[in-house]
Amino acid sequence: MKSFIPYDSDSDFSIYNIPFGVAVFEDDTIGCVSRIGDTVIDLTVLFENGYFNQFELEENIFNAFTLNEFIELGKSVTVPMREHLQSLLTEGSELSKDEETQKEAFHHISKVSMQMPVHVPNYTDFYSSIEHATNVGKMFRDPNNALLPNWRHIPVGYHGRASSIVISGTPIYRPIGQSKPKDSVTPEFGPSKRMDFELEVAFITNSFTVMGERVPVDQAEDHIFGLVLFNDWSARDIQSWEYVPLGPFLGKNFGSSISPWVVTLEALDPFRTEGPEQDPPVFPYLNFNGKKNFDVNLQVYLQPENGEENLICNSNFKYMYWNMAQQLAHHTVNGCNLEVGDMYASGTISGKSEDSFGSMLELSWSGTKPLKLKDGSERKFIEDNDTVIMRGWAEREGKRVGFGEVTGKLLPAKF
Amino acid sequence: MKSFIPYDSDSDFSIYNIPFGVAVFEDDTIGCVSRIGDTVIDLTVLFENGYFNQFELEENIFNAFTLNEFIELGKSVTVPMREHLQSLLTEGSELSKDEETQKEAFHHISKVSMQMPVHVPNYTDFYSSIEHATNVGKMFRDPNNALLPNWRHIPVGYHGRASSIVISGTPIYRPIGQSKPKDSVTPEFGPSKRMDFELEVAFITNSFTVMGERVPVDQAEDHIFGLVLFNDWSARDIQSWEYVPLGPFLGKNFGSSISPWVVTLEALDPFRTEGPEQDPPVFPYLNFNGKKNFDVNLQVYLQPENGEENLICNSNFKYMYWNMAQQLAHHTVNGCNLEVGDMYASGTISGKSEDSFGSMLELSWSGTKPLKLKDGSERKFIEDNDTVIMRGWAEREGKRVGFGEVTGKLLPAKF
Repeated sequence: MKSFIPYDSDSDFSIYNIPFGVAVFEDDTIGCVSRIGDTVIDLTVLFENGYFNQFELEENIFNAFTLNEFIELGKSVTVPMREHLQSLLTEGSELSKDEETQKEAFHHISKVSMQMPVHVPNYTDFYSSIEHATNVGKMFRDPNNALLPNWRHIPVGYHGRASSIVISGTPIYRPIGQSKPKDSVTPEFGPSKRMDFELEVAFITNSFTVMGERVPVDQAEDHIFGLVLFNDWSARDIQSWEYVPLGPFLGKNFGSSISPWVVTLEALDPFRTEGPEQDPPVFPYLNFNGKKNFDVNLQVYLQPENGEENLICNSNFKYMYWNMAQQLAHHTVNGCNLEVGDMYASGTISGKSEDSFGSMLELSWSGTKPLKLKDGSERKFIEDNDTVIMRGWAEREGKRVGFGEVTGKLLPAKF
Repeated sequence: MKSFIPYDSDSDFSIYNIPFGVAVFEDDTIGCVSRIGDTVIDLTVLFENGYFNQFELEENIFNAFTLNEFIELGKSVTVPMREHLQSLLTEGSELSKDEETQKEAFHHISKVSMQMPVHVPNYTDFYSSIEHATNVGKMFRDPNNALLPNWRHIPVGYHGRASSIVISGTPIYRPIGQSKPKDSVTPEFGPSKRMDFELEVAFITNSFTVMGERVPVDQAEDHIFGLVLFNDWSARDIQSWEYVPLGPFLGKNFGSSISPWVVTLEALDPFRTEGPEQDPPVFPYLNFNGKKNFDVNLQVYLQPENGEENLICNSNFKYMYWNMAQQLAHHTVNGCNLEVGDMYASGTISGKSEDSFGSMLELSWSGTKPLKLKDGSERKFIEDNDTVIMRGWAEREGKRVGFGEVTGKLLPAKF
């Protein structure tokens, strides 16, 4: 398969990807888009010019502020629509000869401003990397008994704050709050001193389910439209003082950043792989068939102000102990209902090797092993005006499908 | 002040209340409403007939599926609009003489179906009753050291699930899930055996704030439109197995029930009272002036199928250690942004006496002291087909302002 739109061989946005997003154009209008290489495709224009006529939709579903209405059509529509778009973007297609539509619909990526791709009604964060959970347990609990008793039975998760999920590029202010230094009896108040990122991947659901119904594990992937990279910014000192007994709150809800392009589950299909063995065996409602993990390379870069990017983490989405189908089956086993646009993040994705740990907390081992940067400076945690960049891509037999990146700059605390 | 609409002296919906809600009428149309006694007032009709002309709104803000747009107008508009409505409903008003509008706008409560009053973008649950937190600590941790070290410094809270907040009257299915009996090493799977309610009050915010900004404690009440009763249904056995270390999840998110009438903060103003003394002193960002607690009687009734109501709890909103202004100041001190329609629940409201405990967990002391019902049966926790009814009202000098009730029937688990 070859597109008539040229792109570099290392582009995340090959003809095999065809992701979805929302862009503001130079004329300040907004709409749903796709992308090949550095070319952003205005789907509203393709729709208006009749390129989706065979789907017999009553309205231009792409002429919208978010992808929610498109996603809500469900896989029976969105999957063939994406495949149709892919064929339209292939050499020799009708669109390849229609220069007028191309002129109207194609924009260089530098000329658009990417927006939140979905409205997020509910956001849940899981804790599904066994290496991450083990590292945290070693640091803060018992090094010889790091995993809590429930961890291998439950894809542990908690609810996060939907309102503060923002698009890549949005700066984040260092949060202020209470924390209690180890050697103090009473808490103190001020800007967080242990600012962190968490390398995560989040999936987006495509359906409204009814309270009391559950999503069986073997149908769970039908409810997943696509995925984004997710930086779950964390203030470790605020978190560790507040989180007992009801979980993380102000240590997390000041901001989470996502990548702008939603990569569909179908685009990731060629990169399926086995997950880690689950021992002890899981309950039947979590028992799945087939390959539910995905071989997606994940990287984190830290860039000091006006400085170079430093690669500080090389991880992979395939390390997840609990997969997305299990997460969704678990989330709904009690009858909790799903909504279109819900975001379900993986939790920090760490691997076994020290350079694959997905947070500063783990990389610097709670500040005891500072990272050395190219400019000679050191980092235990994130400093003011540092930018955190996460990238993710899958590649196999010359076919590359990627997420692009999610970036965010940490600004000094605002008083 | 006397309304031309007659109502019983013990009605929660006196001329001093003037709450807001959303109703479906007999002709299947939907809109925003208020209420006096048993008379529901269709605000869309009053608007159309010119009764809100002086507010110069561009559109009929009441002709909507939710109160969100009305609430978003902010107190500078919603407070005078409510006062104007109150004067319209008073003896001798223009409306009192306009029989045609009355005929069109007034419905008996039995002829309408109340709906969710707001769309809830974000839901947070606090843990602000010191008696409740102490009771839980005594049962599950150390009876001599029941409160956790952070409790008197932080209005502890966590994020809940917005999608499963439902209107009074909606049945709730007993959730299925994992739990681990005390005497077992491994978890089991099945319907919850420890179903509970939590007696709470929730407030609703009226503004979109910007990430990075905080709401000062002395301005927090400006952001509160009104309050509802809130039943935070809980599956204690699921909760206790899953909640470490990230907090409650499936033990809570299968459903929460609210009362349909949003009672404004202004209507509760005459019932302000001092809260408990806070010791140790709080950080300056939580330091408030004036009376921020509210003397609102709260009751819980349990009704077996086809049986009588049993009063099982007599509590009061004034028992809250942390008040709403402190909760909101804390929630935003790190820059977390608010949205219109957000719901912030109090946490279980228990008093000092055993009959004032706001959950079955506390009333039956974790199942060790079953409650005796009028029909001779006993309850450690809620049984299938039991209905839980919560009521709340304030009264002073013959003026009564109440919430009505939130009810919910627990249905057997669905397989």
